[in-house]
Amino acid sequence: MAKQPKTSADSRVTMTELVLPNDTNTLNNLMGGRLMHWMDVVSAIAAQKHSNRIVVTASADNISFKNPIQLGDVVTLEAKVTRGFNSSMEVYVEVYAENIPSGTKFKSHSAFFTFVAVDQGGRPIDVPELVPQTPEEQELYDGALRRRQLRLVLAKRMKAEDATELKNLFFDPTKK
Amino acid sequence: MAKQPKTSADSRVTMTELVLPNDTNTLNNLMGGRLMHWMDVVSAIAAQKHSNRIVVTASADNISFKNPIQLGDVVTLEAKVTRGFNSSMEVYVEVYAENIPSGTKFKSHSAFFTFVAVDQGGRPIDVPELVPQTPEEQELYDGALRRRQLRLVLAKRMKAEDATELKNLFFDPTKK
Amino acid sequence: MAKQPKTSADSRVTMTELVLPNDTNTLNNLMGGRLMHWMDVVSAIAAQKHSNRIVVTASADNISFKNPIQLGDVVTLEAKVTRGFNSSMEVYVEVYAENIPSGTKFKSHSAFFTFVAVDQGGRPIDVPELVPQTPEEQELYDGALRRRQLRLVLAKRMKAEDATELKNLFFDPTKK
Amino acid sequence: MAKQPKTSADSRVTMTELVLPNDTNTLNNLMGGRLMHWMDVVSAIAAQKHSNRIVVTASADNISFKNPIQLGDVVTLEAKVTRGFNSSMEVYVEVYAENIPSGTKFKSHSAFFTFVAVDQGGRPIDVPELVPQTPEEQELYDGALRRRQLRLVLAKRMKAEDATELKNLFFDPTKK
Amino acid sequence: MAKQPKTSADSRVTMTELVLPNDTNTLNNLMGGRLMHWMDVVSAIAAQKHSNRIVVTASADNISFKNPIQLGDVVTLEAKVTRGFNSSMEVYVEVYAENIPSGTKFKSHSAFFTFVAVDQGGRPIDVPELVPQTPEEQELYDGALRRRQLRLVLAKRMKAEDATELKNLFFDPTKK
Amino acid sequence: MAKQPKTSADSRVTMTELVLPNDTNTLNNLMGGRLMHWMDVVSAIAAQKHSNRIVVTASADNISFKNPIQLGDVVTLEAKVTRGFNSSMEVYVEVYAENIPSGTKFKSHSAFFTFVAVDQGGRPIDVPELVPQTPEEQELYDGALRRRQLRLVLAKRMKAEDATELKNLFFDPTKK
Repeated sequence: MAKQPKTSADSRVTMTELVLPNDTNTLNNLMGGRLMHWMDVVSAIAAQKHSNRIVVTASADNISFKNPIQLGDVVTLEAKVTRGFNSSMEVYVEVYAENIPSGTKFKSHSAFFTFVAVDQGGRPIDVPELVPQTPEEQELYDGALRRRQLRLVLAKRMKAEDATELKNLFFDPTKK
Repeated sequence: MAKQPKTSADSRVTMTELVLPNDTNTLNNLMGGRLMHWMDVVSAIAAQKHSNRIVVTASADNISFKNPIQLGDVVTLEAKVTRGFNSSMEVYVEVYAENIPSGTKFKSHSAFFTFVAVDQGGRPIDVPELVPQTPEEQELYDGALRRRQLRLVLAKRMKAEDATELKNLFFDPTKK
Repeated sequence: MAKQPKTSADSRVTMTELVLPNDTNTLNNLMGGRLMHWMDVVSAIAAQKHSNRIVVTASADNISFKNPIQLGDVVTLEAKVTRGFNSSMEVYVEVYAENIPSGTKFKSHSAFFTFVAVDQGGRPIDVPELVPQTPEEQELYDGALRRRQLRLVLAKRMKAEDATELKNLFFDPTKK
Repeated sequence: MAKQPKTSADSRVTMTELVLPNDTNTLNNLMGGRLMHWMDVVSAIAAQKHSNRIVVTASADNISFKNPIQLGDVVTLEAKVTRGFNSSMEVYVEVYAENIPSGTKFKSHSAFFTFVAVDQGGRPIDVPELVPQTPEEQELYDGALRRRQLRLVLAKRMKAEDATELKNLFFDPTKK
Repeated sequence: MAKQPKTSADSRVTMTELVLPNDTNTLNNLMGGRLMHWMDVVSAIAAQKHSNRIVVTASADNISFKNPIQLGDVVTLEAKVTRGFNSSMEVYVEVYAENIPSGTKFKSHSAFFTFVAVDQGGRPIDVPELVPQTPEEQELYDGALRRRQLRLVLAKRMKAEDATELKNLFFDPTKK
Repeated sequence: MAKQPKTSADSRVTMTELVLPNDTNTLNNLMGGRLMHWMDVVSAIAAQKHSNRIVVTASADNISFKNPIQLGDVVTLEAKVTRGFNSSMEVYVEVYAENIPSGTKFKSHSAFFTFVAVDQGGRPIDVPELVPQTPEEQELYDGALRRRQLRLVLAKRMKAEDATELKNLFFDPTKK
């Protein structure tokens, strides 16, 4: 990882999509799968920007959909890298939905994706370090380690008792 | 929930997709977002079959992508409901990838989605209970409660110390 | 055709599609052409499975659409190879439509497609024989010869008077 | 059928499509199902023009694909109504493929589709008669009756021995 | 430009599209961007036919949309080359919209596109001259020079005072 | 136009698209028509934000494509309203293309679109005034009047000799 470190601002990407009929179910609501597809694309572009490499999706963390998004709404997705780990990167993506004629706008939800940078032959390759610049970026950076352990435990590639950071997530009341 | 209980077999759905050029990235690998979209559709159909209702995606659990799926591969997705909770259902979806000319086939990954059954006005409505019929279905049924607590904790709608079932997931060595 | 014979079960494929807005006409009914496209894809996968080869569509037999399929319906397509002829295979595909909230399900129609197995250069290559295992599979296997003659006569590549099997189809009251 | 009779020229439609990557299989050849979808759309427009009504696909006759059509080729489809029968119409569609840079052009194949004209409630409604204007149109008009009997026999809605016109198709050497 | 000259008839292309749900906005009107996409495709095919080459879009002239086109309408696009300039060609495209059940048909609008013919490496290559055959083709041919100057002035690649033909467009009352 | 005036910043929209195989021609370059479609969508969202209304595309000004954009490139489109005129708005859209692995990024081109704000019945409705905040916004605001006259002259809805502002565009050497 001798590469020039980068900041979250370097990888920040904004994507805007208009909800069209084929994106919706029979209630005229945006389907969850279409939204996940958009989240993957915008996050992949952020990971590309951080690594200057082709990237492949490694994981998508738990996503909770709250309020329905309607046909004709404008969906804005904002993604940025939170931390690099050897050849992988965690990306934080926030989703906003806006019905412009009615003037309503709300944060729909947020999620974390991870990507691996690869060379033209598809082999993993190191990515730059990320240096957080703001308290919010520092918090995302610190949390990335806990979320990484959660992913490894859920994928049964790490034992829960070894996930020292993760324990804090669940059982240390001083952490949110 | 006075409705007739159902089994996992009642909601079982198989979906087969051929990986076409627009589904792939510049390495000719299936994009993660497209696969999540297919997983959402097949899971939604399983949830529809269990509830005989229109359903909306409530959440997608952590998904880890392991091996790349190639252009021209056949992707098979199998979904079935594992448990009902009032108006929500958990669906288990398994994804297989097969390159027919080369004779390779592998289980790509699996994941859990949850859906809420709604009436024509979009209001939540109760779903039938699920009665497990096999040891594997019983295990999925039991685990559903732990996974539900994990979702609530991750969505900050339950305190970690109240997630009694979840503690077992991480810290009881007798559970896998 | 020294290859290992196969059964219909070896090539059986199930595909499930949700009817989305762009699949429908102005009456909100599934368009016939979209359905033919799905039938071709699922049949091609069955032919791939039988031959372990890339396949190209050679013909689609007469298809009659009976009842309209609606927006939001679930369409299930089941395909399996019925017989191999040198480098070509006949595939039988059955289509079911289900409106889950209203609880209606019906067999929409069925059809026969043929495919040719080709190598990477696009040249025809022999496929395994099919050995029928059940009375229904035997009947499909026997009928494949008559349908093949009908295709050849309709394509003006065989004279009607030479189509000995075909005559039975039309004029022998002991055959259905 | 008191409506003003029409000619084939009244319903003639030309559609041109460029073969894009998502239309092709792994050999870069146009998939048969995509082509059938285009054939259905252009034929439906011809049937709309003849009837001035919404139309639904009733059947597609046997289609034989001969030569592969390549990525980047221009596909031209020409459709026209050949005859009206109460609420249904037969449409003849011809497909041409052209690789413009290499200067090759060939007639790929032709087929017959039938459509039913319906009112806004989806109920069948009478269509105008077609009056053939040229020897080719007269031949298509005459043949429409034989093809209609073949469809009915294949759909098991007419007994073969009652298909008097059809017998000529197969067994009268004076007819082609 | 030693190639065989061509006529507008040589490059004439007709494309027909049915307006489907995903082509429309929340008023059920065809979106302008979808229509521009179709105009680009049909014009590119005309330019291919004139040059027998791969072509790339160089420019689209001002397009004014007048009347809305509705879901279910049939859109007919007719394109033909008006003039060749070294490696570039101007194409004239006319767009008609028809609502068949209601019997309304109108010319929606027209526009000019330019394309550059390129070889397999993407390098510009000369195209045949166009020889106008009718007064309307002659007028399009003559106007092509003025429109070319307007494009160059708007792209700031020609000074307005050097655009001698263009002055006539705006300020000579004898020209329309 | 008694509505609260707005600034260009109020309507600013950023859209990011990844060039996928189906967006490209046989040279693997982004097709002009697909790009125009994206430009229309992002501009329409900007016009919606300015007017808080449904909008319909009224015109697209001359667009010159310079450098080819490749498969896998990231396209960023930025749109903002430049001026309101009764019920219509002019939108300025800039397009950037970036090949992230190779580190190249360039401004592809820019264009002006106009939209009309409409009510639910499709009738035009007044939009807020725009108040420019920066010298660049003032220049775009001033130029909007000249471009409007050019559109009207090109659409033959204004005589060239009455287009007083337009004359400056072409023939006043003190204006750029």
